[in-house]
Amino acid sequence: MPYRHLGRSGLRVSVLSFGSWVTFGTQLDVGLAAECLAAARETGVNFFDNAEAYAGGESERLMGKAIERLGWTRSSYVVSTKLFWGIRDEVNMRNTLNRKYLLQAIDGSLERFGLDFVDVLFCHRPDPSTPIEETVWAMSDIVAAGKALYWGTSEWSADEIRAAWEIAERHHLRKPVVEQPQYNLFARRRVEREYARLYEDLGLGLTTWSPLASGLLTGKYLDGVPEGSRAALPGYEWLRKALTDPARNEAVRGLRQVADELGCSLAQLAIAWCARNPRVSTVITGASRPEQVRENMGALAVLDQLDDEVCRRIDELTVPHAS
Amino acid sequence: MPYRHLGRSGLRVSVLSFGSWVTFGTQLDVGLAAECLAAARETGVNFFDNAEAYAGGESERLMGKAIERLGWTRSSYVVSTKLFWGIRDEVNMRNTLNRKYLLQAIDGSLERFGLDFVDVLFCHRPDPSTPIEETVWAMSDIVAAGKALYWGTSEWSADEIRAAWEIAERHHLRKPVVEQPQYNLFARRRVEREYARLYEDLGLGLTTWSPLASGLLTGKYLDGVPEGSRAALPGYEWLRKALTDPARNEAVRGLRQVADELGCSLAQLAIAWCARNPRVSTVITGASRPEQVRENMGALAVLDQLDDEVCRRIDELTVPHAS
Amino acid sequence: MPYRHLGRSGLRVSVLSFGSWVTFGTQLDVGLAAECLAAARETGVNFFDNAEAYAGGESERLMGKAIERLGWTRSSYVVSTKLFWGIRDEVNMRNTLNRKYLLQAIDGSLERFGLDFVDVLFCHRPDPSTPIEETVWAMSDIVAAGKALYWGTSEWSADEIRAAWEIAERHHLRKPVVEQPQYNLFARRRVEREYARLYEDLGLGLTTWSPLASGLLTGKYLDGVPEGSRAALPGYEWLRKALTDPARNEAVRGLRQVADELGCSLAQLAIAWCARNPRVSTVITGASRPEQVRENMGALAVLDQLDDEVCRRIDELTVPHAS
Amino acid sequence: MPYRHLGRSGLRVSVLSFGSWVTFGTQLDVGLAAECLAAARETGVNFFDNAEAYAGGESERLMGKAIERLGWTRSSYVVSTKLFWGIRDEVNMRNTLNRKYLLQAIDGSLERFGLDFVDVLFCHRPDPSTPIEETVWAMSDIVAAGKALYWGTSEWSADEIRAAWEIAERHHLRKPVVEQPQYNLFARRRVEREYARLYEDLGLGLTTWSPLASGLLTGKYLDGVPEGSRAALPGYEWLRKALTDPARNEAVRGLRQVADELGCSLAQLAIAWCARNPRVSTVITGASRPEQVRENMGALAVLDQLDDEVCRRIDELTVPHAS
Repeated sequence: MPYRHLGRSGLRVSVLSFGSWVTFGTQLDVGLAAECLAAARETGVNFFDNAEAYAGGESERLMGKAIERLGWTRSSYVVSTKLFWGIRDEVNMRNTLNRKYLLQAIDGSLERFGLDFVDVLFCHRPDPSTPIEETVWAMSDIVAAGKALYWGTSEWSADEIRAAWEIAERHHLRKPVVEQPQYNLFARRRVEREYARLYEDLGLGLTTWSPLASGLLTGKYLDGVPEGSRAALPGYEWLRKALTDPARNEAVRGLRQVADELGCSLAQLAIAWCARNPRVSTVITGASRPEQVRENMGALAVLDQLDDEVCRRIDELTVPHAS
Repeated sequence: MPYRHLGRSGLRVSVLSFGSWVTFGTQLDVGLAAECLAAARETGVNFFDNAEAYAGGESERLMGKAIERLGWTRSSYVVSTKLFWGIRDEVNMRNTLNRKYLLQAIDGSLERFGLDFVDVLFCHRPDPSTPIEETVWAMSDIVAAGKALYWGTSEWSADEIRAAWEIAERHHLRKPVVEQPQYNLFARRRVEREYARLYEDLGLGLTTWSPLASGLLTGKYLDGVPEGSRAALPGYEWLRKALTDPARNEAVRGLRQVADELGCSLAQLAIAWCARNPRVSTVITGASRPEQVRENMGALAVLDQLDDEVCRRIDELTVPHAS
Repeated sequence: MPYRHLGRSGLRVSVLSFGSWVTFGTQLDVGLAAECLAAARETGVNFFDNAEAYAGGESERLMGKAIERLGWTRSSYVVSTKLFWGIRDEVNMRNTLNRKYLLQAIDGSLERFGLDFVDVLFCHRPDPSTPIEETVWAMSDIVAAGKALYWGTSEWSADEIRAAWEIAERHHLRKPVVEQPQYNLFARRRVEREYARLYEDLGLGLTTWSPLASGLLTGKYLDGVPEGSRAALPGYEWLRKALTDPARNEAVRGLRQVADELGCSLAQLAIAWCARNPRVSTVITGASRPEQVRENMGALAVLDQLDDEVCRRIDELTVPHAS
Repeated sequence: MPYRHLGRSGLRVSVLSFGSWVTFGTQLDVGLAAECLAAARETGVNFFDNAEAYAGGESERLMGKAIERLGWTRSSYVVSTKLFWGIRDEVNMRNTLNRKYLLQAIDGSLERFGLDFVDVLFCHRPDPSTPIEETVWAMSDIVAAGKALYWGTSEWSADEIRAAWEIAERHHLRKPVVEQPQYNLFARRRVEREYARLYEDLGLGLTTWSPLASGLLTGKYLDGVPEGSRAALPGYEWLRKALTDPARNEAVRGLRQVADELGCSLAQLAIAWCARNPRVSTVITGASRPEQVRENMGALAVLDQLDDEVCRRIDELTVPHAS
């Protein structure tokens, strides 16, 4: 497993990593969670992503218990969590990055994890109603208190990231080092264009999510919405629409041809494609079974095959349908 | 004519203004130029926009001569120019915002204008290959030297504008006060979304261009491309395609209905709609004949009629087709 | 001719450039100087290096007259000079970077050049007896006064360069953007090791001198010191010793074999080798006849041939004998 | 025993001090270690140097136990340790100065020592892959947390030391006060030349190591490599080569003559020579037996005898062979 620095920071993370998003705490028990983490670690994964809001806090709790059961030394892994949505239905604890929320929420996360600190703490979304300066102070205070080692943002605009960085620089506070954006073959503009100046100017690192575009890039929607899939659930019409887009599925069909020629799965091709971008520190992948973890990690073998010619073909297929 | 502050600066500009873009120096002589300027001034216009690159420097020269002929006092008008493309085919003088170019180019502009200073100097585009810090120093030095009173940017990303502002703040230099973006019923994202945080955070003002979307919003492409129009010229296929987009022209048809009900022209409606956004300091309009100037300025009368209900109708027609 | 940015600055310089060192003002008259400059410019050279101390000021005077005769526009070339040794035998005007010397010396240089400003002004050596802060203030003031557009250092240690940069950053002064070090196949440590952190941290550019190691890399000392050469003069024993070093000349013999295989001269190989380092903004070459200029510029054609294999052979021959 | 300030800091250290390098934890038990420490303290030594990596952490543990057995008050001695190599085979815990490593490693060191804090914490080597700013923040945080009182560097370049100092100054963090370089009669350039500006500019102190040049300056390699010495071990060919260098051993022979005249041992002369440099705060010496400690400390008596004439003779013998 190759390791990359988290942006310009000295922290090194595995180029493929493991995130608990939907699955932890809902479909998994501690035993299965531990098996997934162990499978990831066996391939060299050292970065494990989480968030307060995943399964209302249960995802953090489950990961904490699984790691405890596995007996890993604290120095051997890098764990993150993300704050914004909140899990308490109170005025100051929902959809906010105010100081009160952040300082109280990190304590809740650490308690659920059973940890003294997380390695990386993210602001899960921007909050237009809280001054960025207030958020930067709170995040910096959390780092100063030793409750997080590094901090970053998720789905912030380039302008907001720079504002946070500049405020931290000006006031001699801890600067954000990483952003966690969506990034996949159909979602490229932000990583490739909007953030372009931030990599050199700020040394921004990226931990990217949704490498499979909610499953679209696995090919499972090539022939409509399979029964029992998330996109088939009532209330998920928006997702169903996105996943069954004819032009994109046509592109996926072309990608399947490329994957076949490379001797890998569609998912592996899509994951490897994200990792081939050197601005990406780590590609967060999800899984609810150990064999799925291993299948995802198989993308590593594809990485070297993505030469200029293959990338050109992939671009031809997908760029016209990407945002 | 209402006047608005140029962002949070103390400078006040007429809400409608006059720019010389394509027309000056090519279709106009000094006499006609002076007539246009005089017509604009009669309606209260005090802001006149220009650029080094317009007609290879001739646009500045023509405006300078016209103003001289009109005998205006220097204190009674606000004139701008913009630097980036360059007019000399030399390595350091093309498509750049480096220090050497900016310091030499402003002297050329002032000489062509026959002025000691411009009121507002814009960086006409961002230059990814020059550090923003170098550009900020040069622009600040130009202001310090009295060759420009204020400076701003044109078509910079929110991130780039903030970077410039922060660098100026940190190093105690003159800050940019204004951005000149494209803004019209079909081009809204940047002004309404991307720059959202900049208005309060930096006090950014806007001098907007292309209120008529290259003529699309005059309705003249409702029935195809008229002979002799710019979009009919060879080499302008891209423009022809944009101007004859069926969905947008369908929206224009709906807008004509609104304009008819308000008793104004399509162009006046489109210009007034830009001006009704309080973030806009001034809407730059173009004309090559005095009567066209007066027609444009007629948009002022429409401004008060754009109540919530009318704006809602306009949004319904255009938002689905806007970028 | 390829152009590179001068470090992280926005100024672009030709990858091969022309310096006037010993030859101007002693062996050349204005006519021949103009021919050399013209020959360089014909191949695309836009950077012309000079120094106050070269021929006691005559080198600047000669270059200024030659450029005037050629009628070049000021925006089309980049000219530098360097201050330190002084040309007046007075206590405060010799071997110093104090404020009094720098402010008076730049005026002298500009007068000799017949120019309003130089593009780049160098501190020709470090001065341990003047605080770096005093020098930074003086250089920054010279830039602020418009007498130089950028400034840099020559033969400063990494520590001194960083000290200058940090002082400028802290006090919001103009930062140095470039260093002019010796760099050739036998003098590598500084550029490749000592400055290693400065390229990324400060964006330092390099204008390198002595690509031929005082002629050693032309092969002309392979069979001893030719009569009439500089190294044969009394008082130049130190140079003679360096130029006739047996191990280095043995390495040169091996390089000649490489040059023969590439179909270029030894000098062209040595110059191209410097230019192949992407940290080098421009390689300053010297000549006293137009045909020598053209011979030097022939190194451009060699640049693409310096692949990993050729560079490995060159390293094997020279690294053991390089400092 | 004379005491000197640790650079410009207010902390005073004995001019000769004691370091545990190779010997602790391998050849010594707690009893012998305590005897060595006691012997050093009897001559006035108050500075005791250590490092995480010495004997994989055992050196810290042994020193901690020995000091506990001796019952010294915490205020009566100055103890240091150094972090960089790491002792855990984990991605972020080896050869790094990243935040995660430093914060976790200092806790491990303190636990092994059985102390609440070390007096001086060193970065054992530079880490080119971690921004100096990140390291400065972490070291400063460790000082702020009371886990170290002062911090410094070891074997950093002048440029890197200054960068750390400037970043700390700019961001109002705790500055490094000391560097621990190799320094002896055959290794002088760094202390005497490269760091020259740092003593006055930053107030840098020095705790120097290897005063005997790995034993070369004891004269024990004058007649080849003694059986059983480290240089005789397989895998130490590089050391054997350095220690048996003919020119250097010839110089040692001359030094022995000087030592004989001064009535001291070669080792004492070499140690005293380091201490005679007023830039040196303390010369770290090593020993694995109490009598060896006392022999080393005998260098104190030589210190006053090193007048200009003796130093001139020593320079003549060694400078040509020193780096």
